[in-house]
Parts: sequence; C-alpha cells; structure tokens
Amino acid sequence: MNIREKFELLGIDNAPGQESLQKNMALDLRGEKLPGAKVDFSHGDVDAHKPTPGSLGVFVEGFLEGGSQAYTPYRGKKDILEQVAADLAAFSGAPVDPASELILTPGTQGALFLAMGANVMPGDKVAIVEPDYFANRKMVEFFGGEMVPVQMYYKNVSVGSGIDLAELEKAFQAGVKVFLFSNPNNPVGCVYSFDEIVKIAALAKQYDVTLIVDELYSRQVYPGVKYTHLRAQKEIPDNLITIIGPSKTESLSGFRLGVAYGTAEIIERMEKLQAIMALRCSGYNQAVFHTWFHEPDGWMAARVNAHREIRDAILEVISTVPGVSARPTDGGSYLFVEIPELEVSLHQFIRIVREMANVTLTPGTEFGPQFLHEFRINFSQDRDNAVDAMKRVFAVMDRYRK
Amino acid sequence: MNIREKFELLGIDNAPGQESLQKNMALDLRGEKLPGAKVDFSHGDVDAHKPTPGSLGVFVEGFLEGGSQAYTPYRGKKDILEQVAADLAAFSGAPVDPASELILTPGTQGALFLAMGANVMPGDKVAIVEPDYFANRKMVEFFGGEMVPVQMYYKNVSVGSGIDLAELEKAFQAGVKVFLFSNPNNPVGCVYSFDEIVKIAALAKQYDVTLIVDELYSRQVYPGVKYTHLRAQKEIPDNLITIIGPSKTESLSGFRLGVAYGTAEIIERMEKLQAIMALRCSGYNQAVFHTWFHEPDGWMAARVNAHREIRDAILEVISTVPGVSARPTDGGSYLFVEIPELEVSLHQFIRIVREMANVTLTPGTEFGPQFLHEFRINFSQDRDNAVDAMKRVFAVMDRYRK
Repeated sequence: MNIREKFELLGIDNAPGQESLQKNMALDLRGEKLPGAKVDFSHGDVDAHKPTPGSLGVFVEGFLEGGSQAYTPYRGKKDILEQVAADLAAFSGAPVDPASELILTPGTQGALFLAMGANVMPGDKVAIVEPDYFANRKMVEFFGGEMVPVQMYYKNVSVGSGIDLAELEKAFQAGVKVFLFSNPNNPVGCVYSFDEIVKIAALAKQYDVTLIVDELYSRQVYPGVKYTHLRAQKEIPDNLITIIGPSKTESLSGFRLGVAYGTAEIIERMEKLQAIMALRCSGYNQAVFHTWFHEPDGWMAARVNAHREIRDAILEVISTVPGVSARPTDGGSYLFVEIPELEVSLHQFIRIVREMANVTLTPGTEFGPQFLHEFRINFSQDRDNAVDAMKRVFAVMDRYRK
Repeated sequence: MNIREKFELLGIDNAPGQESLQKNMALDLRGEKLPGAKVDFSHGDVDAHKPTPGSLGVFVEGFLEGGSQAYTPYRGKKDILEQVAADLAAFSGAPVDPASELILTPGTQGALFLAMGANVMPGDKVAIVEPDYFANRKMVEFFGGEMVPVQMYYKNVSVGSGIDLAELEKAFQAGVKVFLFSNPNNPVGCVYSFDEIVKIAALAKQYDVTLIVDELYSRQVYPGVKYTHLRAQKEIPDNLITIIGPSKTESLSGFRLGVAYGTAEIIERMEKLQAIMALRCSGYNQAVFHTWFHEPDGWMAARVNAHREIRDAILEVISTVPGVSARPTDGGSYLFVEIPELEVSLHQFIRIVREMANVTLTPGTEFGPQFLHEFRINFSQDRDNAVDAMKRVFAVMDRYRK
C-alpha cells in the first residue's frame, strides 16, 4: 500500500462539517425548494446553546497571565491538571492522580487520536462497534490496525446499547488488542446498561484487552437513564483510558479542549505522542478548563432539560411520518433516524435535502457501511428551527418514496 | 517491535519545556548556588516579548462571532485562508491557492506532524539534517520511517548552512522519499544560501523527493543575511510543503497556530489526517491569524532589532569564555553553544546548571546524538536577565573543566 492508497481509506467528504467541500454531482431534484431557516444538523449550534458562562473571561485571564499559561508541560498546566483530576474523580467515582493519570488534549478528537496512536501497532486487531463514531474506524486504518466490527442491536432493546457481547468475546478470543467505544453511543445516543459495562470490563480483564471508553456526552444523560462509568467498577482491565471533554454539552468546541485519563503508562506514551503532534493543548485555552464542572448552579440541569425538550419535539415529528423511526436518545444530542427505501441513494438524498431544504444531515454510512437507510442529526439546535427543518426533510423525502 | 519499544524511542524527558518532569538524579554539585533571575532558555519568553498587539482583541471578536468561527472546515475558515494565502504568496514570492494549497494547523508542530503523516509510510527513507529540530527525527520514528542523516558543517562556513550536498544527493540516490529541514536551522540559526536552496530543490526534482521546508523563523532574519524561499525558485519538486506560523517572532505560541502550504494533493491528505487528529485548529484561535503579516507599522522591524541586540550581547559574553563558541545567528532566536570537555556529562551539566544557576538549557543531543558538547538557547528573553544567566552558566561550567 502506498501513501495515496492509505489516504483513500480516510475519505472525509461526508464527514460532519465538511459538506461545503463536496464536489458537484447531478441531482434528481423534484418539486420546489422548501423555504426555512438553514439548519446544520452535522454539529451542535453554539449560538442557540451558548458556551459556559464565564468561559471567555477565564480565557482572557489566561492570556493576561502570560508566559506561564502560554507554555505548559505537554500534558498540561499543573494547577489545571489538579483541578480537572479532582473533578473527574468525583464525576466518575474513582480516584485520578493528576501527576500521572491525566492529559489535556486538543479536543476529545485529540485525546482519541493520542490514545489510539499510543496503543495500536500495525497489524493489531481493534474492535469497533457498529454503529459508532466515524473517526474510530478511520483511526484504526491510519495506524495500520485491523478492524474487527462488533454489532450493536440498538433497535432490539430499550434499555442498554444492545451490543452483541458474545461477538465481542469472540473478537477478544481472536486476539483483539484494543476495544474503543463511545458511551453514550454516537450516533444512536443509547447508554450502555450496568450489566453491559460490567461485562465489557470483565471480558477486557480476562483477555487482557486495552479499553478506550469515549464518554464525551456522559454529562448529558436524560432522566430515568442510569449511567455507569466503567473505570469505577470492581473488575477493570490493566489498561484503561477514559475520554471526555467540554466540546458538546458545554458548547466549548471552539476552544478545542479534551482530556484522557487512566493508566499512567498509557498517559505517558500519549504525552510523548502529543510532543510531536501539537506540543500541547493550546496554553491559553487550557485556562477555560477552570469553568468545567464549575458551571453556575442549575445551568447544567437547565441545558440538559432544554435538550430533552428538543429531542421530544423531534421525536413527535418523526412519529407522524410513515416508515421513519428513531430510538429515543438516552444521552447526548444525537438521533439516528431510519428512513424507508427511496428512489435515490442515501448520499444523493442527503445532498438533495441540502439543496432543497437547506438542511445538513450526516449519512449513516459514516458509522458503518451497512447503515444505508439512516442519517444522524445533532439536535443541539434552536428548537423551532430544528422541528421545522425536520418537517422539511420528510416533505422532501416523500417525493422520493418507492 | 511492540508499542512500548516504539515509544521508548520517543523519549521527551530532555525536550524543551519538559524539564520539570525529570526524575531526580544524584548530581555532583560544586560550590555555592549563583543567585539571579530564573531564565528558561528552552523557549522564548512571551512576557519579555509580548504577543502581537491586538491579538487578544481579534480572538475575542472571533469568540463573539460564535458558531461560524467555532466550527470551520477542517483545513480552516474560508476568509482566513484567503487572507493568509495572499500574505504568504507575497511573503514567499509565489502564488498560493487558498482553496487547495493551504491548511491551518494546531501550531507549526501540528503542521509538521500532518506533513510527515501524509507522506511517510513504514519503511520509507527520510533524510534529516544533523543538527536539526529534535521532533523531526522523532516523527520519522513514530511513522516507522528509516532515518537517513545528512550532516551540516555549519562551523565550516559563515554564509549558508554548510549542508553536505554530496551526502544529500547520495541519500536521494539511495531511495530517500522525503527530506525535511528547517531554514533558518534550529538549533544553529544559520540560513541556507541561495545556492544551497537552488541545489536542494533541483536534487529533489531530479530524484522525485518530497520536500518539507520548515520556515518557522523566516520572518526574523538579521540585516545582511539573504533569505531564499525554496518554493519561489524556478526548478522545484512536484511535492513540496512549506511550513510557518506565528508562534515564535510574533510570540503567539499560546494560541497554537501554524500553517502548511504547497502541493494540493498533499494538503488534501493532511486535511484527512487533521480530521482524525484534532478536527481543526481551534476555531476561535484561527481569528488571531487576522493579525499575522498585519502587525503595526515598524513593529516587526523593532522586534527583529531587539533580538539582534540580545544575540550580540550574548555573543559578547561567549567571546570572553575560553573554549566556548557559537556561530552568530543568521535568523531566529537560537544559539547553538559549544563548550569544552567537562568532568561531568552534558546531561549532568545541564541539570547542575538548573540547580545551581536557575537556568534551563536544551542539550545538543536533542538535535543529533553526536552533539555532546553543545547546548541550545532561545535568546528571546529579557536582555539583561539573559546576559546575566549566561554568565552564571559559564561560572558554573568553570567548576567542572577538565
């Protein structure tokens, strides 16, 4: 394989946020355009749901602090590591050593990349859930690993993820070295049950598999859903990294902040990789971590509640459209919407919707090649705009039903 | 090779800025501590040389712009790409297409990592100058390339770098795929002559070698030195990436901003890699690029002049110490200082200096294993503090002469 072939595998034309780069293709456009506010469901709208109060202020303080904030050790500034470690320990239910078990990274994507780069050697088998975050499989490809898919039958269950634990064990038996998964799952928004998490941890320990648990959306779990932090369970594997950051619920994505915490030996390797990847998470931006887990009283609860209301309003729209369904989100801002067979392909449909309805969707194929009748939306949007946009999507869809 | 062995090669204990993480070792301390202001020569002091005027202001404007600044395409925001492309075209002397030939990255380190990751496959031969930036060789190791060292006899010449062009051609003949070098050189601060640059470009074209030219310090060239941008020459290779950013002369390192520009096909691969590495250069931080190449009238000239004065003041100190020498810097803020044989190792000496004189130096071995009698300083410091610190370094050194 040469470098061109390697990068062919890393296509990003359909990745969320990249739609403006798509080449023109002839589209089978039917009927009139549907007017309405532009909605980009590929990511959250930080204008509709503003960054944490005070985040700009602590950034400015960081800038004014000068050199000591601009240049930090590659893993992060000492006092920020200490604060974040204490908050993550309280949040996840198990201790975190700020000196050895935590690293600040450029976004959670940075944390994922470092964790994968610090654990995957060419030829290593890596288990990846289907569906799961689109970059997961791309990272396996980039680092030359061999992807072992594990199915998640999320439609078969209403509690838990529906991950096929027998298939997971078979993958571990077949020599999988690393298992990476998101909880709440991206794109479905389901939360793994206590039993699922305990079993995954036990299997990883039994087969000596390194676990990378992406908990990016774990602060945004809806009422009635129980969230289980794998790292706080009795039986956990020797090699375990948990990933989280303030880019989603807290709307701080513009600062590119993320963290990874867990096994000290892995964190040390991740810091070595960060030293050649980007040196450090931007020094001034690190200051914004001071607001994290220290939002004003009631702010997080109100934010979660606002998102629950948007979820429910969109689910109500979906319930009126024949042949369309989505599992209600347990946590996070995603819905993975199943649509019926159409007279155009999924990718064509998504471009048609952008053209006719001014709405951006992410195709299911980003999360697994078999998801040809699904699209993902991030419903962290203005509520009315989002509801109206979904109505337009389905009105356009009706023109292409088989 | 397993993942542990792979990362053993990436040691960062002696990397600039990481000194606080060094484990205690028994040191042969002689005499009294020398009092004086702490000076960290491992990087520039952005308190002594402040960030570009207005940089905080444009950051705040970017934040207030909201979602459109927070979420940009992975390669960067359109209007910023357009402005930076125009400025880089004027600066380097050859056109830059903002849509296809430019990417914004988390620091120039990010640009280097993306450029290497987008060009080096396991087993590929990569030519690296000795001495040159310490991360260069580490990136080759991380991506599984085979390093082919090329010597630079910088002490033999007063104009140009002294790179061994015959050795470079031999390396190219032996199948080198990629040649990465910094100009001005880090750590020596020499600038490649016109003849050297033209020859390197011609050789790369002849042998179809991909060139990555790190021009990070190219805006800070001292009077009387002619700087040649390789990309603006008549004969250049098909695959060429130039790297630069505002982290050094402009003191904007705390924002982590860098750019790579050149061959569209490589930039496209770099964007694919950035999509899984960190998604994008922090959206709000990108706004700070608006200040770049648009500093207030006379500001850059004054900054360069201030650094020339510090360089000269330190060279004057060096000239008084027997057995110590450094080639005067052509461009940038580095001096690569040669010291005589001591009764302790270079690494011990550097830790002793930190303990006894409160001064941080970077060992020559970071730039090539053979540099056992050199250390690097970044003299972008308060002038008086820097001069006094260097006197303390040599006073300590005298206690260990053989």
